[in-house]
Amino acid sequence: MDKFGLPARYLGTQRKSVWEEYVQLAADYNPLDLGQGYSDFLPPEHIISALDQVVKNKNVLLHQYTRGCGHPRLVSVLSKLYSRFIGRSINPNTEILISAGAYGALYCTIMGHIDDGDEVIIIEPFFDCYESMVVTAGGTPRFVPLRFNNNSSSELKSSDWTLNPEELENAFNSRTKAIIINTPNNPLGKVFTESELQMVADLCKKWNVMCISDEVYEWLVYEPQRHVRMASLPGMWERTVTIGSAGKTYSITGWKIGWAYGPANLIHNLHVVHRNSIYACTTSLQEAIAIGYEKELDCLGQDNCYFISLPRQLEQKKNYMADFLSKMGMRPVIPDGGYFMVANWSSLEPEIDLSAENDKYKDYRFTKWLTKNVGIQGIPPSAFYSEPHKALAETLVRFCFIKQDEKLRRAARILEEWKATK
Amino acid sequence: MDKFGLPARYLGTQRKSVWEEYVQLAADYNPLDLGQGYSDFLPPEHIISALDQVVKNKNVLLHQYTRGCGHPRLVSVLSKLYSRFIGRSINPNTEILISAGAYGALYCTIMGHIDDGDEVIIIEPFFDCYESMVVTAGGTPRFVPLRFNNNSSSELKSSDWTLNPEELENAFNSRTKAIIINTPNNPLGKVFTESELQMVADLCKKWNVMCISDEVYEWLVYEPQRHVRMASLPGMWERTVTIGSAGKTYSITGWKIGWAYGPANLIHNLHVVHRNSIYACTTSLQEAIAIGYEKELDCLGQDNCYFISLPRQLEQKKNYMADFLSKMGMRPVIPDGGYFMVANWSSLEPEIDLSAENDKYKDYRFTKWLTKNVGIQGIPPSAFYSEPHKALAETLVRFCFIKQDEKLRRAARILEEWKATK
Repeated sequence: MDKFGLPARYLGTQRKSVWEEYVQLAADYNPLDLGQGYSDFLPPEHIISALDQVVKNKNVLLHQYTRGCGHPRLVSVLSKLYSRFIGRSINPNTEILISAGAYGALYCTIMGHIDDGDEVIIIEPFFDCYESMVVTAGGTPRFVPLRFNNNSSSELKSSDWTLNPEELENAFNSRTKAIIINTPNNPLGKVFTESELQMVADLCKKWNVMCISDEVYEWLVYEPQRHVRMASLPGMWERTVTIGSAGKTYSITGWKIGWAYGPANLIHNLHVVHRNSIYACTTSLQEAIAIGYEKELDCLGQDNCYFISLPRQLEQKKNYMADFLSKMGMRPVIPDGGYFMVANWSSLEPEIDLSAENDKYKDYRFTKWLTKNVGIQGIPPSAFYSEPHKALAETLVRFCFIKQDEKLRRAARILEEWKATK
Repeated sequence: MDKFGLPARYLGTQRKSVWEEYVQLAADYNPLDLGQGYSDFLPPEHIISALDQVVKNKNVLLHQYTRGCGHPRLVSVLSKLYSRFIGRSINPNTEILISAGAYGALYCTIMGHIDDGDEVIIIEPFFDCYESMVVTAGGTPRFVPLRFNNNSSSELKSSDWTLNPEELENAFNSRTKAIIINTPNNPLGKVFTESELQMVADLCKKWNVMCISDEVYEWLVYEPQRHVRMASLPGMWERTVTIGSAGKTYSITGWKIGWAYGPANLIHNLHVVHRNSIYACTTSLQEAIAIGYEKELDCLGQDNCYFISLPRQLEQKKNYMADFLSKMGMRPVIPDGGYFMVANWSSLEPEIDLSAENDKYKDYRFTKWLTKNVGIQGIPPSAFYSEPHKALAETLVRFCFIKQDEKLRRAARILEEWKATK
């Protein structure tokens, strides 16, 4: 055995990453990229100017280490913001962690709570890092998929995917340490309703389980839906760690600033992991994000609050994408939240030849075919499922619509032209 | 047992952190702070203007995720730079990781290589995170202290601390996975000589052990000393992971960008940990640092290269501090590298009363007394030793001299005034 091989905890986390594979695919074929989940337009002007202001500031401390578990100005504004939404006073020092993106917050949460032998329920579809983090921490994931329930032939909606109460209940047992839920959900765009969350909450309380609530798309919810925070349900604050993201909020995924908030006893464990792994996050970016959030807090609920204006701006893009996907013969699933749209492409199957691709799952074959032959890149949603459930997503493809209008128009034209040749 | 207590891997890592304790002490007593290791003057103008240029850039990709294991422009310039110093061509994609500070690079190195049952030799004094990371990874630290060898009464120098060859050799055995060495060393300022490094290298080869070489102060070496890179010794590239830091190089500790480089098979493990824990670092800061390093590479070895001008600037501060510490009765240890100076304060002991402090180790009592009664803050160096060896540092105190001249003059005045009252 190679003495310098991977430690045992990382064996079993080495599944091929869809992101690396599809970034490479995009590099090789140069398609119009609707795959990766980030904006291709500039972040809001006020957040860039906040950073500009910080860079120009002569305060030398803005270039040096700040408080490890969160820059004071940022944890302060986040505590004010979330206190309002959760309906209790959140302590900025003990109940919040600022981390290297929501990704880092998830890592600190999972490593700080999951130990050998713990079981963790993961609702599918899920962001793929959940699984590898749980395995690294010594835990065993138990997957519960959302089930598709739409027997009519009408428009598909993200709310057509629901939890099966019995399946969910059966996943809990005395070894269950945590459940991970993502609302609004990537890739489906499903926004869990209060009654769905209440069902999860009741089981968490029954089995003394913590809830890791990944709410990074919290501000990206389309009227008339509204985002319900798990931690705001009765009796759930004390057992919920909620994940948030400046990257998703302001379309600045490259800044890598996210956070977790929850009760002090649960957040303490995250602080330990954070201090053990990176100690602190970038001071200047935390300062700039704090300035941005202070502005949002000042105009919360008003038209000029970015939390309001961004989903309105995206609503149009969402509708436009749904329209052009329909026209080319797919069945788009209208999302209630987030900036992704999955679409059912199975009606195209008779017209296309996927035989050049040899991936196990058909959605991989379809998306590769689409990139190479049509010039549009999407992501295969089976990547968001555990092996036994991947077949649930084989007829779907995920597209990202937080893109410039011009790019979306170009995508529409490309698909229209392809359709015309059929 | 509390179901939501810390996982077993973090038990035993919960020693009181000297940083938290002394940051709080500074907040409570408002001393002139020569404790924490960062600059109190602005970073070099060209690195700030590089960031300014990036913030103003209309390239939207500078605000979005970049390549996970390192922004292409940054790994490219680092590969060019280090290839020159190591004397081989370093592959930017497979042999470098950009991480959340050198701290993050150490974490990825240790978590990526240390497994249950592995032993890790740590040379003392050491940066305190080494120990907690090794324990978290399931390893057992074995400590080998540098020994003080100066029997004359002349000036103390950092090179008076040396490895005892027999002690070092005895620490190796068949369970030894790695050795961690820090050159230039924090807090002593010792720059390991080529023959000292060769002794470590020979043992690494004999026992098939990897070397984690923390070289974050690589550019902070004072004439006529020179920094020798462990990875440049014969046969050592293939078994060394070297840690570097933009934060230490440019006095921008708050940017939190560091790296590791080494052979692809060893770096692969770091990539796995990095992708599992934070995935990527801030794009804009990596771009700005790349711009800075490109400039240094263009003028390498010339007076206007920051790698040259910074140590020259610090040389004066170092001499000034040595002078004022001597005048007040301490014996400063002249460092060959880094921006810390330890000093022996034992000759002051008869004049001062430490009885108000009840810490176990005398250097803690002295530094707390100094903060509260004189108004100058230093760090107790026993914090950099394992429990059995802490007594080795009890007569020392660590000061940081990367401070504005005005602040150093103020420190000198405060100490002079205190001395006058004796």
